[in-house]
Amino acid sequence: MKPDWLGDSVKLPDQTSASRALAKQSQLTKPPGSLGLLEGLAIQLSSLQRTEKPAAEKVQIAIFAADHGVAAAGVSAFPQEVTVQMIANFSAGGAAISVLAKSLQADLDVIDVGTVVEPGILPGVISRRAGAGTANLQVKDAMDEAQLVVALNAGREAALRAKERSVDLFIGGDMGIGNTTPAAALGCVLLDADPEQLAGPGTGLDSTGVAHKANVIREALSRYGNLANQPLEALRCLGGFEIAALTGAYISCAHLGIPVLVDGYITTAAALVAVKHQPEIREWLIFSHQSAEPGHQAMLNALDAKPLLNLGMRLGEGSGAATAVPLLRAACTLHNKMATFADAGVAEG
Amino acid sequence: MKPDWLGDSVKLPDQTSASRALAKQSQLTKPPGSLGLLEGLAIQLSSLQRTEKPAAEKVQIAIFAADHGVAAAGVSAFPQEVTVQMIANFSAGGAAISVLAKSLQADLDVIDVGTVVEPGILPGVISRRAGAGTANLQVKDAMDEAQLVVALNAGREAALRAKERSVDLFIGGDMGIGNTTPAAALGCVLLDADPEQLAGPGTGLDSTGVAHKANVIREALSRYGNLANQPLEALRCLGGFEIAALTGAYISCAHLGIPVLVDGYITTAAALVAVKHQPEIREWLIFSHQSAEPGHQAMLNALDAKPLLNLGMRLGEGSGAATAVPLLRAACTLHNKMATFADAGVAEG
Repeated sequence: MKPDWLGDSVKLPDQTSASRALAKQSQLTKPPGSLGLLEGLAIQLSSLQRTEKPAAEKVQIAIFAADHGVAAAGVSAFPQEVTVQMIANFSAGGAAISVLAKSLQADLDVIDVGTVVEPGILPGVISRRAGAGTANLQVKDAMDEAQLVVALNAGREAALRAKERSVDLFIGGDMGIGNTTPAAALGCVLLDADPEQLAGPGTGLDSTGVAHKANVIREALSRYGNLANQPLEALRCLGGFEIAALTGAYISCAHLGIPVLVDGYITTAAALVAVKHQPEIREWLIFSHQSAEPGHQAMLNALDAKPLLNLGMRLGEGSGAATAVPLLRAACTLHNKMATFADAGVAEG
Repeated sequence: MKPDWLGDSVKLPDQTSASRALAKQSQLTKPPGSLGLLEGLAIQLSSLQRTEKPAAEKVQIAIFAADHGVAAAGVSAFPQEVTVQMIANFSAGGAAISVLAKSLQADLDVIDVGTVVEPGILPGVISRRAGAGTANLQVKDAMDEAQLVVALNAGREAALRAKERSVDLFIGGDMGIGNTTPAAALGCVLLDADPEQLAGPGTGLDSTGVAHKANVIREALSRYGNLANQPLEALRCLGGFEIAALTGAYISCAHLGIPVLVDGYITTAAALVAVKHQPEIREWLIFSHQSAEPGHQAMLNALDAKPLLNLGMRLGEGSGAATAVPLLRAACTLHNKMATFADAGVAEG
């Protein structure tokens, strides 16, 4: 029984704000187009935020953490207990995303969607557990229907918190040892791609490890028919509680009118599920960075996404998106604060 | 008679700080290498700044503005009076770089190295005029020896101001209608490239305009023998007072031990001259962005430079470098503030 909100409609971007922002860009004291992608970002944010003064100041970051049964298949370079250890590290302020969130003055929530060992009560950590990790997708469905609903709702709630806080931008992040395997498996289903194309080294597998990972995914996929047009069912079978939560968050942000800055490989898999569910969601997604994980490119292509950064990052946690926030801020500040040719008495070309 | 300081030696980066920074990166709570280029940036800045706590907080931006005789050959989409109008716009806070500098809390100096019409006395504008614009390089040497010295010294002084202010990072910017032509001409000489390869649309030429620009450069180059190994002489003949000032600034920063964040096409031409003058200068240069100007790639290749951003920007003014500053800040903050595996009790892979 899926939650009703999944059927809500996607908020329409505002074409009037977009047209005004485009007109304003042509009046600013610079050659037309010379700020490159920063111009388009300001226009897109104007349209999504329905404003003449786009902003990326108030940022909500939500990290969804969960464990994966498939870790038992030996698909990660790190032991599974790292997931829960990293939740403690997020909470204590020592992880990359903690440091970045602080420097951006962004709100940071950590949501435990289901680790094997419970993290206990920690500051800033919200418990929305769908189970003690997913089942091993190599041999069975990663989750049942009820677990999928818990995970989707965890994402929905994060979007509602962002709405309540009137943020300019939502960032979702992931933590879950083994989660490049379900992300790649979902990509294979939704893009009709081979496991070899989408499986990569993750946190540090060698080529033998990558080949093994591709085989694990192939085995999983062999249990199902074509799920390309059943994205939520694919999500249930191949899982990742945190991927489901991210999917719920992205869907809800588009329903609630909150622009989303997508992170890397795992979050792009969630974005794929969301856009397959409702194609209009695509307009609410800004892609922050190209991951070093080789399969990311195929997912980005399918979403017609050209990320802002390509720094070879592959950490997850929302860290690539957080790193790109200053670009959105620069785009908005330039749009809002630059003088026009008329104001400055500068001749136009 | 060239200034003595041109012969000073380049400060050596500190290998001990680099080794310590590299060791520290491997202890931070993330898979090794997962922060991509941000890791290398933190290590490079540690080495250049001789510290365990690299920083990009205090930033000095110096914009060098000048006019170009070659504008008379019709090589720009904008009229020449825009150079001096933009100096007023920088001073009044309305230009892209003014807005970016303010948001970065960076110092911004504007140095008039020689516009056709004097800008008059304006806040934040320093007068170091080498002449009322260069001569038209299509028909004669852009500047004489004395003018070259004035312009180089203008850059030297900017670096000395940065040293006095103990900044973490120096950014040079350019303003000068027509200046992609001398920049391309310098590139042709120093890279032994064809004008067709390096001439581009600049602020907005069409293909006929670009072909004309290439012909103007070809005509200029035909007056000289091979200047590939005489970078300062090439600079004198093909000019750009602001390009010469940027060259002087970059050379001096490397002598004084100040890391430089290079902007786009014009500043990369100055960087090329500086590195041809003293190859060790290369270690002090961080390349911020890939310009939309097509010839930039060849110059970057010659300098073995992989810029941080590729946003299709082509404004100059140091705007691409200013946009990249938050990436350096993120790199430093992550390096300085993240927990280690031992501190956080997280298992290593």
